[in-house]
Amino acid sequence: MSDRLAAQIAFLSEADQLKSVMRASRLHDNSRYENSAEHSWHVMLYAFVLAEQAGPDVRIDRVLKMLLLHDIVEIDAGDNPIHGTVDAAAQEAKEQIAADRLFGLLPQDQAKAFRDIWDEFEAAETPDAVFAKSIDRVQPPISNMANGGGSWLEYGVTIDQLSQRVGTPVQRGAPRLWQWLFPKLEAFFSKMPSK
Amino acid sequence: MSDRLAAQIAFLSEADQLKSVMRASRLHDNSRYENSAEHSWHVMLYAFVLAEQAGPDVRIDRVLKMLLLHDIVEIDAGDNPIHGTVDAAAQEAKEQIAADRLFGLLPQDQAKAFRDIWDEFEAAETPDAVFAKSIDRVQPPISNMANGGGSWLEYGVTIDQLSQRVGTPVQRGAPRLWQWLFPKLEAFFSKMPSK
Repeated sequence: MSDRLAAQIAFLSEADQLKSVMRASRLHDNSRYENSAEHSWHVMLYAFVLAEQAGPDVRIDRVLKMLLLHDIVEIDAGDNPIHGTVDAAAQEAKEQIAADRLFGLLPQDQAKAFRDIWDEFEAAETPDAVFAKSIDRVQPPISNMANGGGSWLEYGVTIDQLSQRVGTPVQRGAPRLWQWLFPKLEAFFSKMPSK
Repeated sequence: MSDRLAAQIAFLSEADQLKSVMRASRLHDNSRYENSAEHSWHVMLYAFVLAEQAGPDVRIDRVLKMLLLHDIVEIDAGDNPIHGTVDAAAQEAKEQIAADRLFGLLPQDQAKAFRDIWDEFEAAETPDAVFAKSIDRVQPPISNMANGGGSWLEYGVTIDQLSQRVGTPVQRGAPRLWQWLFPKLEAFFSKMPSK
């Protein structure tokens, strides 16, 4: 048991670094960029509060576990801003190597179980993963509206780009949520200052 | 539905402030204090990884939800460092008022459900709450050992105080974990520099 616990604590200690991975989005009060650990907490809270937006096949307990683990690979691979210009294939390759190393710190049975959860999230095919992805995408726009534009200003994002990059996954997993949000986004963009 | 969603998003937006509530504990790399949002993420990861340390009556899915919500009251009430000198009764009163206001932002059915989860955590009587409390207590010592002493140095904590304040709840919810950890803490304290 001692070796097993040592491996588990080694993984949990390595995971502390997610608190130093900075995202493109900013806090609601615009005081600083958000990090990927606190973002992970916030999207879990979103998923729990907005669980009724999910389809009937979605098991919210599994969604929470997906969101708990979804960004851990960023410790090695960095955050890939949705409105940035990172090469998607190169980023994916980096994330696969990161997943091997990071989940590989755990005892073998857990390494496999955690990797399976993360792979399922990344593939975005099961109802749980589709909902988890939609929730992961819906949080930053709400922060951006609160802080005056945030990453939209920084990356010069248009409402059409937002509809495509964010609207598509949100509509897929939580269509009523997007229906509610989109008019608010349109109104915000029509008044948003340029940088 | 529109009012309901507006209330839910208002709660989720208010919750963003947990990212600005600073704790007494520091990151593993000692670069800064930890905030309560990223701490909440980290203890959920601890609970998921260390679930096998829990007794047979513990439902880990409920533990994760408790830990997701456990610190939200700190947005209004602030963090109460375990080694600090805050008046416990006054702090509890502040937290009750905070819970009324913050969970009260949600639609009524969710406000009650979330408050019930938080009340159960605070009471620390059910198996789920006892395990959640033990996990909440075990993360800071592991950070402190990583960063050279952290809040122990700042508050002049002794191994006996640690055994009482941290060992008691950890032993209650995860006895084998404390058995594994305590010799490591003893060895660390025997070499810890004073501030």
